[in-house]
Amino acid sequence: MNGAESLVRTLLEGGVDTCFANPGTSEMHFVAALDRVPGMRCVLGLFEGVVTGAADGYARIAGKPAATLLHCGPGLANGLANLHNARRANSPVINIIGDHATHHRQYDTPLTADVEGWARPVSVWTRTATEVGAVGTAAAAAIQAACTAPGGIASLILPSDVSWDAGGQVAAPMPSIPAPRVSPDVLLNIARTLRSGRPSLLLVAGRALAEDAMADAQRIAAATGAQLFCPVQNARIPRGRGRFEIERIPYFADAARARLDGIANVILVGAPAPANFFAYPGKSSRPYADDATVHVLARPEEDLADALRRLAEELAAPPLTCPQTAAETQLGSGPLSSAAVAQSLSVLLPEHAIVVDEAATFGHAFYPGTRHAAPHDWLQNTGGAIGHGLPMALGAAVAAPERRVVALQADGSAMYTPQALWTMARERLDVTVVILANRKYAILQLELANVGATAGATAMNMLDLGNPDLDWVQIATGMGVEAARADTMERFNELFAMANRRPGPFLIELVV
Amino acid sequence: MNGAESLVRTLLEGGVDTCFANPGTSEMHFVAALDRVPGMRCVLGLFEGVVTGAADGYARIAGKPAATLLHCGPGLANGLANLHNARRANSPVINIIGDHATHHRQYDTPLTADVEGWARPVSVWTRTATEVGAVGTAAAAAIQAACTAPGGIASLILPSDVSWDAGGQVAAPMPSIPAPRVSPDVLLNIARTLRSGRPSLLLVAGRALAEDAMADAQRIAAATGAQLFCPVQNARIPRGRGRFEIERIPYFADAARARLDGIANVILVGAPAPANFFAYPGKSSRPYADDATVHVLARPEEDLADALRRLAEELAAPPLTCPQTAAETQLGSGPLSSAAVAQSLSVLLPEHAIVVDEAATFGHAFYPGTRHAAPHDWLQNTGGAIGHGLPMALGAAVAAPERRVVALQADGSAMYTPQALWTMARERLDVTVVILANRKYAILQLELANVGATAGATAMNMLDLGNPDLDWVQIATGMGVEAARADTMERFNELFAMANRRPGPFLIELVV
Repeated sequence: MNGAESLVRTLLEGGVDTCFANPGTSEMHFVAALDRVPGMRCVLGLFEGVVTGAADGYARIAGKPAATLLHCGPGLANGLANLHNARRANSPVINIIGDHATHHRQYDTPLTADVEGWARPVSVWTRTATEVGAVGTAAAAAIQAACTAPGGIASLILPSDVSWDAGGQVAAPMPSIPAPRVSPDVLLNIARTLRSGRPSLLLVAGRALAEDAMADAQRIAAATGAQLFCPVQNARIPRGRGRFEIERIPYFADAARARLDGIANVILVGAPAPANFFAYPGKSSRPYADDATVHVLARPEEDLADALRRLAEELAAPPLTCPQTAAETQLGSGPLSSAAVAQSLSVLLPEHAIVVDEAATFGHAFYPGTRHAAPHDWLQNTGGAIGHGLPMALGAAVAAPERRVVALQADGSAMYTPQALWTMARERLDVTVVILANRKYAILQLELANVGATAGATAMNMLDLGNPDLDWVQIATGMGVEAARADTMERFNELFAMANRRPGPFLIELVV
Repeated sequence: MNGAESLVRTLLEGGVDTCFANPGTSEMHFVAALDRVPGMRCVLGLFEGVVTGAADGYARIAGKPAATLLHCGPGLANGLANLHNARRANSPVINIIGDHATHHRQYDTPLTADVEGWARPVSVWTRTATEVGAVGTAAAAAIQAACTAPGGIASLILPSDVSWDAGGQVAAPMPSIPAPRVSPDVLLNIARTLRSGRPSLLLVAGRALAEDAMADAQRIAAATGAQLFCPVQNARIPRGRGRFEIERIPYFADAARARLDGIANVILVGAPAPANFFAYPGKSSRPYADDATVHVLARPEEDLADALRRLAEELAAPPLTCPQTAAETQLGSGPLSSAAVAQSLSVLLPEHAIVVDEAATFGHAFYPGTRHAAPHDWLQNTGGAIGHGLPMALGAAVAAPERRVVALQADGSAMYTPQALWTMARERLDVTVVILANRKYAILQLELANVGATAGATAMNMLDLGNPDLDWVQIATGMGVEAARADTMERFNELFAMANRRPGPFLIELVV
């Protein structure tokens, strides 16, 4: 057995059975091993940003890692932005990077690059397998590292000779490492703070957004009067009818500051202390008052659900029942607006849909406007590196073939990784893509004013995606995805309902 | 004057008057400064790989650096692969990366990343400007560093507060640093080696491929019997009728080994010692014999033209006149083949065209088959990170608006950075793009056998771009570039001649 085969077999033993790949010459033995070892689903991406973003989307829905397969340093480099996003989502990923043979690296041939140096900033674990017998063990260790709470990217670099040499050994899965429990002292301190009666913010993130943990967080908030929020961007929020809703901290600095006015205690549950996305001249980076106190109930790597449950018990917070609401029936109509689209989404979102939200400015009403939609998961870009939505939708669809994925996608961001459309077509994935075509970097036109800059013609030209307008129907069709354009609510409603009913991907260019 | 304005003014003073940009919030003051300071041409790319590849193409043709403008760590990450290629081409680039305000970084907000860590492996110079008064000096130092032989990437990280703070100071250009001359001892040793009569290879690269240096290299080879080669991939080769032709070392290991059989001395002029692009099981990484001796006439950072001229004089090598050849008139015809397309190119390439070659497997006959075309420059992917061709063509066209750019582009590689087409349309650049649509990663199908792997259905699926076929006419049209398809030589000849005569970009999908 060669090293590549020992790698594939170890991955399968460890429960990793999906690989998003963009291979090159140095990965040919891994690719060849896929035919000798049944059980690994291999999905081709035509650009590495698609591969890594898909692995992120997959992990968020499957709750376990997929593997990537990338070609040398530059292949990794192309995937870094979405690995950055995955890192911010704490998504487990087995990030496999093929590289030159160990004896070949010294020649510094064209593709030679600092693979480890580029991988480390996004990885919780980075290792180069330098001999064939160590490949299996390294793969098992990678799975363990990726799956240890809160989850992260394990980058395994695989020189081609280590891949093709004989002597590969399959490694058994390493034991999973349980998330540490919060100490009783911490719980008592937080309980005391919440009982103090001073205005408190309970900020929950990550696994604390799962349904069971959320129920406890809601109990705590109801019993103590604490305000319950999650960060502006989250890996996955289960929501919709029959589920508790949670408000996000507003994106813009002034709105966030206004919303958190008067907060004396900031209590963190798997979240970092809130900070504005960007700095603005003359403004604090924090949306809460300077004299507020920050408390940590649980760090991201700790057992968040356990901490919330024990805190609720300590506070003797009564159980809560989620208020039941009726299904929405009134479609959005009239002029195209964020609120009107949200209204239609709240009627038309299929049961258990996966919503991938990279909608940017036009999407401002989508999250609040869909709280009464059918139960669904809401996935966001957690790292701010745009070009995440389409790949993430693709990965989510691979993880959950029985669910509809709806990608709400700003046009500027979509242009970073349009290649994802091709893979959706090839794999016949049930994805409805809605391109929100405002034909500009609208967020930057807002931010220009926020940072106190004034723009003339040259600057505005840098923020404008028109001249020429992108034609998303042609771009999608060119990549094998059926598509149509809507410029009224009526047409959107008709297309969106149709797209969600038919198998395979469909793209709607919504000209807003 | 704020820091951003001092940066723009210092760049202009240093002769940097073109900026390829994909800005975000942290770069808004730079963007705003462009309207206050006339003289900087700013070209928008919809993905950072387009921006950095364009800066490389620009530098190769303009002979001076452009600036990039990238948004935080992830924006840099998206541009790294083409920066890797630019590094291998020794292209000067002023790589400007906006980042969070200095006081904001501590909050580790979503976009925070290891900008310096990612930049350093591709850069000859990396600096974060930490206060506004230092921005001008840093920019001047960046230009000096980028332009010091052999040329490289200077990465300047610009926190947003340093950009918006008042107190910017324009810095005068720093003196250029001349390339060191090779010592007389080295010259004498190389001359002695060449006079020995043992078979020698003279391997020239970089600036040694410029017309004047090439004439001296040819003299030396003719006078001594040395074989003259350049590496398989080169930043820029001036060639065509009335110019000396130079052979490239073959790409594939066996072909290279056969071509260099019997070589006893390898003499390097700005080139690394030849090594195969990849390692193969049981094969040496070197294409020359183990007992051959490697000599260095000049390192890349030394004055290559001077070294060749002095060596020619030392050897008393008689001047050579380049043999004149008649213009080709016979268009390629019959079945579509690499040779037939090359034949048509040799007739139809416009005078002083810039050929960007990312043609991969189907292009194997293009370089040898176009030696008698009208005078032109031949630009290649020097780092092996595919997705370089379209951005490089765009940058070359910005650098030389009076010349036609012809991009010979493999389809798999084109899919990495198709967004370049949109910028070609917006800037109305005279680029003829020929997509060689074989609908597979053909090079990998060859390499699979070369590395001794055998592929079944899963593996072949990873190397196949069909299912669904990409429709390049629709993709291009969707990005504003007129396009047409050819599947015969006759249709190709007609479209290619037409495309080269009309202003603006045109894409031909050649189904091969």
